[in-house]
Formats: sequence, structure tokens, C-alpha cells
Amino acid sequence: MTRDLIRDLPKKIGETVNLKGRVTNTRKLGSITFAQLLDYTGTIQTVWEKEIDIKPGEVVSLSGKVKEDSRSKSGVEVGGEKIEVISKLLETPPVDLTKSKFDIQLSTLLDHRTTTLRHPRIHAIFKLYNLLLEGYEKVMREEGFTEIKTPKILEAASEGGANFFKINYFDKEAFLAQSPQLYKQIMVGVFERVFEIGSTFRAEPHFTTRHINEYISIDAEMGFIESFRDVTAMLNKVVKKIFAHIRENGQEYLDLYGVELDKVPDEIPHLKLAEVREIVEKEYGYKIPDTTDIDPEGERLAGRYAKEKFGSSFLFITHYPWSDKPFYTMTSKDNPKETEGFDLLYNGMEIVTGSQRIHDYDTLIANMKKKGMKDKGLEFYLETFKYSMPPHGGWGWGSERTIQLMLGLKSVKEATLFPRDVKRLKP
Amino acid sequence: MTRDLIRDLPKKIGETVNLKGRVTNTRKLGSITFAQLLDYTGTIQTVWEKEIDIKPGEVVSLSGKVKEDSRSKSGVEVGGEKIEVISKLLETPPVDLTKSKFDIQLSTLLDHRTTTLRHPRIHAIFKLYNLLLEGYEKVMREEGFTEIKTPKILEAASEGGANFFKINYFDKEAFLAQSPQLYKQIMVGVFERVFEIGSTFRAEPHFTTRHINEYISIDAEMGFIESFRDVTAMLNKVVKKIFAHIRENGQEYLDLYGVELDKVPDEIPHLKLAEVREIVEKEYGYKIPDTTDIDPEGERLAGRYAKEKFGSSFLFITHYPWSDKPFYTMTSKDNPKETEGFDLLYNGMEIVTGSQRIHDYDTLIANMKKKGMKDKGLEFYLETFKYSMPPHGGWGWGSERTIQLMLGLKSVKEATLFPRDVKRLKP
Repeated sequence: MTRDLIRDLPKKIGETVNLKGRVTNTRKLGSITFAQLLDYTGTIQTVWEKEIDIKPGEVVSLSGKVKEDSRSKSGVEVGGEKIEVISKLLETPPVDLTKSKFDIQLSTLLDHRTTTLRHPRIHAIFKLYNLLLEGYEKVMREEGFTEIKTPKILEAASEGGANFFKINYFDKEAFLAQSPQLYKQIMVGVFERVFEIGSTFRAEPHFTTRHINEYISIDAEMGFIESFRDVTAMLNKVVKKIFAHIRENGQEYLDLYGVELDKVPDEIPHLKLAEVREIVEKEYGYKIPDTTDIDPEGERLAGRYAKEKFGSSFLFITHYPWSDKPFYTMTSKDNPKETEGFDLLYNGMEIVTGSQRIHDYDTLIANMKKKGMKDKGLEFYLETFKYSMPPHGGWGWGSERTIQLMLGLKSVKEATLFPRDVKRLKP
Repeated sequence: MTRDLIRDLPKKIGETVNLKGRVTNTRKLGSITFAQLLDYTGTIQTVWEKEIDIKPGEVVSLSGKVKEDSRSKSGVEVGGEKIEVISKLLETPPVDLTKSKFDIQLSTLLDHRTTTLRHPRIHAIFKLYNLLLEGYEKVMREEGFTEIKTPKILEAASEGGANFFKINYFDKEAFLAQSPQLYKQIMVGVFERVFEIGSTFRAEPHFTTRHINEYISIDAEMGFIESFRDVTAMLNKVVKKIFAHIRENGQEYLDLYGVELDKVPDEIPHLKLAEVREIVEKEYGYKIPDTTDIDPEGERLAGRYAKEKFGSSFLFITHYPWSDKPFYTMTSKDNPKETEGFDLLYNGMEIVTGSQRIHDYDTLIANMKKKGMKDKGLEFYLETFKYSMPPHGGWGWGSERTIQLMLGLKSVKEATLFPRDVKRLKP
């Protein structure tokens, strides 16, 4: 028996079809039962003039006749004839998936992920996430970037950051990668423009709504730039195209959150960090503490300023201090205490970090010395710069956080299928 | 000064253009110098009627006039006018990248990866790898699969395999994922069809040409199948479309290896493991040892048989013994000692493993008992099957090995940018 797909039903009015899928909801109206069916191509209302022994949540196989239905989005419904349960619910699910509001505690949401992911509102988050990935894969290739996959197990915690997870690697110790930084720079020497979508691990003991210990970083690195502004210009273009892709293909999911997707300006405004610190104090009376470049409240207010002043949900904050940035970051020509780098804020939170990198061997060695770093473990990386490297730069982009901010979710964990934090290692 | 791209030059005959890229080779003929230039869009020959102070391998910026050249593939060359080195070679590279033959030892190839990746033959491997990834991303979405990203840090080494890497996860112990198996099955309950491209870690102390300890697995899982033959049929279709994509976009890279890409049959032949064992002995006089289902020599001969008998570079070997397969594998209806599973061989080596999975809660619990497994650590996974799951199956596919076999490379490490093995943790 051939299976018909829900998306094809509008072309099959009057025909008897065989469908398979999950019944997401049922409703009785007198002697009539309505059952909503979901398959991987869409949803459809089925109408039954008899009792059916189906519980919402069960997967079924059914047959029925396709009829016009002007009230539904697809313009059709199915007059049910036969229905059979393929797999029964053995217990009542721990959460009620049939309520359109789904306002449950984060811990419950995550503890029962297997079930909660099936709710249409949660389902929508990861359909949008899929569109973000698809958009990135597509757009980066359009821009001439080659996709690469770099190792996540490293010999040394050598990238200049702290908080690496340690692994027992046979008879040695090894570390989980915090980013593909060194490898993607090496690959600029091969393909000039590269991108990667990969797992990233940070052993930071955070308890915040914006951090997780394992996430998917979407990275890029490009050669022959004149300055970091070539990188922000490329990122601007990429974000704009991806958001257009999500708008075009994800409206039904955005609608569940009442979200109209933010417009991406042709030129996202740039402000120096020093300017941002002044503006935030002057405009909103908030003094960003001197112990930090910028804190979450500072970012929130900078985002508010970008919205109020430029009508932009996005803002580049540039020229962070050299002392806080990794050794491979290019220092600013005008002020060597600042860097040719940027963060991209979206709705008042950082989603991307990037910069121009040092491509000159001697400068790199000098910079490492200033940071008190040794060559050891970095020989393979440093070798790259002995053999001619173009000026280059790139970014690391937090994928889950982008979806969090797009939908206004309270925690980034809501935008992660199976999040990992200090306390959570399952499901 | 605007940068012109090499791919656009055929449209700019007679114009003066500004190019940037790496000089991959130079050659003198009397008073004329030829310099091959590579940028991210292609390569072009530049011709100089004067001495130029450029070493092969250096990145440069140059200007010149585009001229017709009927002998070159693009139909054009550039008459060089000005050239400037952007970044000098500080030392002679450890390997000579200008030789078209590049027959160096694997250890040198990997030790100096930064340099060796720049050779056109090595460059080509990873351009083809990029096409494999692009093909998978595109084709899987065409077939209605949603892309997911599942965690690589796990609380328990619970999947039924051995050889997990251990991590220090804050005050606990954790493990690196050997596959996304349990998570992708959970996601069938959400999206019905899912795929993932992700890092996979195996702490197997192998010293072979076909194993690495970290690799990229390209996975899929699909619901509402009638049998595992629906999975092999889907995989057949996907492989066929991806190979067509590679053929269409990667011929110049295949040419460097003299490879004409294998035709993928509309119906890849299926043979049961028991049959394969008989055939290999009868046809080639090789007895596969009883201590194994099939060994590399057995696979090689099975591949040879598929080629000789069916003219196919691909072969599905099915019905592996239940005793050797993980607990989630569906046993065969006809013979409970066999499984509804398969390996896909390509040129005599396994590249994909898959099966129908058990979707019935009670059967799953019974199967775990038979395997001597406990629920502990698997509660979140088992919960999935209490709440109605369709019959489903899927595969895990070794991406690097596919490129190895496509090009006939001696080791899978040659098809991995920065491979990890028992002894190698860098570069």
C-alpha cells in the first residue's frame, strides 16, 4: 500500500489516500471526531463520523477521502474511513502535548526532552534551527567558502583560552577543542575561504541563561582582506541572506511565537567598545564596571541604543582591548592596546565574535611573547606563517544562541536539543 | 582597488584586472616567465615578459591584461604588468609543492599538513570532501530529512559498544559519543526523518589504513518503514544523487587521480552475509575465519564479486548475526539469530552500517535483557518508546572513508584533514 504524503493532498481532492503519521490532537463535536495528523511533510485535519479509539500522541496509519475545506490553510481535510494504531501509548505522557500554551519549567522541559520536543512550539524551534544550518551551508558556498571539518581532540590546550575539558586519550592526556581557530586559519592557506559547522566544548562553570558547555559553532575564515571591515561586511551579507532564507521558509514556525523576523540592515552599525561604554552611561545612566569590557547589562543597553538610534536589531561592537583577546588577534593600527576585532550583538546579546588575525610570522611570535606564551604545541600552527599567508580574518558564531534571541527564549538551553551544563549530562 | 576573481576573467578579455592569490608554480622559457595563480575561484596562467622576483608558494597581488589563450581550459591568460608579494616565504617549504607527482610518505604528508594540504592533489581530496558534504546536506533535505545536532558528551557509555573515550566533566566522569544513535532515534519521534553530520569518537587501538579515532559520521534515521529494505532503498537513492553531484562539480579534482566516478546502480545488489561467506569461498577459494562475520579480505572479495557478477562498485551485505549487533537492532522475522541490518560496501570496503531498529518498548527491554544490559543511564532513551514510536531505521556513514575509496587512497588518514590515531594528536 503506497503511502501518501500530507503535502500532496491539495492535488488529490476526491481521491482516497493512505496516510501515516502521529495524531497530535483530537477533539469531539457531537458525534464527530477531529484528529490532527502530522507527518514529515505537514499536518492535516482528519474528520471521523464514528468513534475512533486513538489517543493524541499515537502513531497511526489511516485511509480516507480528501475533501475541500476552505477554513484550513492547505484548503483540504480528510474524511476518515479506516484507522489503525501502529504503536500505542503505554503510559500517559509526563506533559500534556495537546495544549497550545506550553508554559512549563525549564527543568521539566529538559528532563522529559523525548516528549517535550514533540510539542508544536518546541518542534518549531528546531525546524528554525534546521533552517539556520541550511541557510549557512547554502550561503557560505554561494560566497565561495569551502566546508571543512577539523579535529575536536587536541594534544594541547594551546589556543590561549582557559577551561578546556581533559580526555584520557590512550596512554596520554588530551583536550576537547574550544574552537576550530588554529585549524581554520591553516585552511585559509589552502582554500582561502573556509567554513565549518562543528561541536565546541567549554569547561566554564557557568550557571547562566546564555551559556552551555557544548554547542555548535558556525565558523568562517577568509583571506585577502584589507581590514576587519571586510569580515564584518561579509558577515553582514551572510546574516542578511540567512535571515531572508528563514523568513521565506520558516514563517509558520515564527508565527507560533508571534515573531516577525528582524530586518537585517544593509549596513549594520559599528561602534567602538569605548564609545559604547560612554553611550550606555550617558543615555541610560548605566556604568559598565571597569572590571569588564562589557557585561550583559551593557550589551542589553547597547542593543537598545542600536534599536532606538539606528532602528537595527544588530550592532557591531569593535576594538576590544588587546589584553583580553587571544594572541592571534590583530592589534589596531591607531592604538596597539586595541584590536581589529568585533562582536556582533543581536537583540542585545553577543552572537558572533571575530577579528582580523595576525598573518605575519614575526609579529605573531612577538605577540605570543608579550602574552607570555610558549611555542610548544603550536609548532604546526606557526609553521603555516613561515610559508606565506594572506591577511585574513573570520568569526565564530553561536548557533543556538541565535535561535534563542530570534524567538526571545529565556534560556539558550531551550534552543539546544539536548543541552549540557555543569549539572546536566542527560538526556 | 577592486579585486577581480579568476573565474570572471573569460568575460574580461582585453581588460586590465587586479588579482590576488597564491603563486602555485613558476616556469621560465627564455626571457618569459609563466606564473600559475590560484584564488578561491580558480587558477590562471600569468605571463611575464620581464624578470619577476616571486617564489612558488607566495601570496601576491598583481595586475595585467586578460588575453585569449586557446591552449588553456578557461580560454584566457593574463599578461602580467605589476606584481607585489603580500607575504614572503621565510623558509623553503619542507616538501616541494611544485611537482605534479606528489608521492611522499604518509608520516611526512601528515607531519607537515599545513604545507602538504596546499598541493593540488591534496587540495583536490578536500574539495571532493566538500562536495560530499554539500551533496548530503542538499539531498537529505530534498528527501524530507531535518538536520539535527546531538550532544557529543554523554553521561554513560551506554550504547552497547566498547571503547569510549573518558572525559573529566567538572566533578564527574563523562564519555565522548561513539555515534548519535540514541538521539537520532529519539528525534524520529519528533521529525520522522532526521540527519546529522557530526564528530564521532572511537577509542579503538587500531593501527590500520581504514580506521581513525575521530571521524565525521553522516547519519540518518527515518520513520514509518516497512522493513530495512526501505532504508537501503533510501540510501541507494541518496548515494546515487550525491555521486551525480560530485561528478557534476568535481570532475577537475577526480581527473587529478585519473578517476572516473563509479556508477551507482538504480538497485544496488543485496546479499546475505551467509551467502557472501559461501560465495567468497566457492568463487575465490578464501575461507572467511569463523571468528569473524567478515574480515577485510572477505569484504574485498565480496566487492570483487559484486563488480564481476553485477557490474556494481556497491554491495549491500545483510543479515549480520544478532549476537554481534547492538541491542537496538531489529532481529530478523525468519531467523531471530540474524538481524534486519546491512553494511554497504564500496569498492570492497564497508562505508555505511545500518538497520531497522526495535520500536516496541517490550521487545526492546527483552532484547536488552538477552544482551545482559541494564536500564541505568538509558531511561531517557527507553522513555521514547513508551510514548508511541513508528517502525524506523537508519544508517551511520563514514565520510572520510568514502573519499578514500573514491580516489583509491592507501589510508583513510589521507582523506582526513588532521587525522587522529593512537599515536597522532597533532597537527
